This record gives sequence, C-alpha cells and structure tokens, in this order.
Amino acid sequence: MYVVLVYDISQEEKGQKRWSRVFKICKKYLSHIQNSVFEGEISKAQLVKLQQELRQFIDKNLDSVIIFKSRNEKWLDKEFWGKVEDKTGFFL
Amino acid sequence: MYVVLVYDISQEEKGQKRWSRVFKICKKYLSHIQNSVFEGEISKAQLVKLQQELRQFIDKNLDSVIIFKSRNEKWLDKEFWGKVEDKTGFFL
Repeated sequence: MYVVLVYDISQEEKGQKRWSRVFKICKKYLSHIQNSVFEGEISKAQLVKLQQELRQFIDKNLDSVIIFKSRNEKWLDKEFWGKVEDKTGFFL
Repeated sequence: MYVVLVYDISQEEKGQKRWSRVFKICKKYLSHIQNSVFEGEISKAQLVKLQQELRQFIDKNLDSVIIFKSRNEKWLDKEFWGKVEDKTGFFL
C-alpha cells in the first residue's frame, strides 16, 4: 500500500531527541518529502514494524503521528505548491 | 475531492508571519488536524482559490506546500498513532 506519514513531536520532555528518533525510524521505511512528512510504498507487515518501533518513542500525550493509507498510489495525486524538494537536508 | 495539505514554512525572511498567514488561509477551506496539516472535502474551484491565496504568501525558494488529492475520502484510511487531536490549540 501507499502511505503518507505526518508527525508533530512536542518540544516538551526532550522533544528534540524524540524528533530525531522518529525521523530516523521513518527514514528506514519511507521517503522523506517534507520536514515532518514521509511517503512511500510499504507492506502491511512493514507498516506494523514501523508502528511498533515508533511506539517506543512517541509520547501518546504530547506527540501526534497521522498516517494516511491508500491501497494504490494512483488514487492519490500529489502537487507541490512551493519548493519541490526539501533542500534543507537532514543529516542525522 | 478530499485533500490533505501539509506545509513547512521556513523561519527565514519573517517566516513566523508567513506561517500565520498560511495557517489562516488553510483554515478557511480545510480542517486543521496537526500542527501544519489540514484535510477536508473541497471542490476544484475552491482548491484553485486556496492555491491563489497561498501563492501570495509562500516563498517558492524557502517554503514547501504539498497537497495530496483523492477523488474520494474512502480511498484513504487515516490512523492516529499518537494523540488524536491537536490539543495545543492555535488561536491566531
């Protein structure tokens, strides 16, 4: 399936560290397309693994992770209205 | 159609002001579901208006706005892995 994952990690409770952890985990499974946005094709099994890994670090009271799932990428059109790539770079 | 809009506004060049503008414009057309993420049903005409309004404020070299469009919301499943609502509140 094709997924878009967006996250917002609170700065409270050592948020920067959690942000980096979440970023690194997502990067193992998906492509980075914007500051806190990932996308990509992923199997059900891999998605479960991703969720399990993230669960260890996400603070359920502070952080938000939303995942949009589509059975097929072609059902979802993507448009860039600003800059196309994230050129800021994240070398974590 | 159903859309998910994610944006990342650079802090450079009075970014905070641009962020607020972009936030306010998106809020007129869509529902706020995460820090810089909106979603909702929108017509083609309204989407064009939204794009026109945003274009005035977005810095094409600094800011990123990505819009995912699906003809039908049912083609897209949404899951919350962290907190469900954005409780931080944005009273702009």
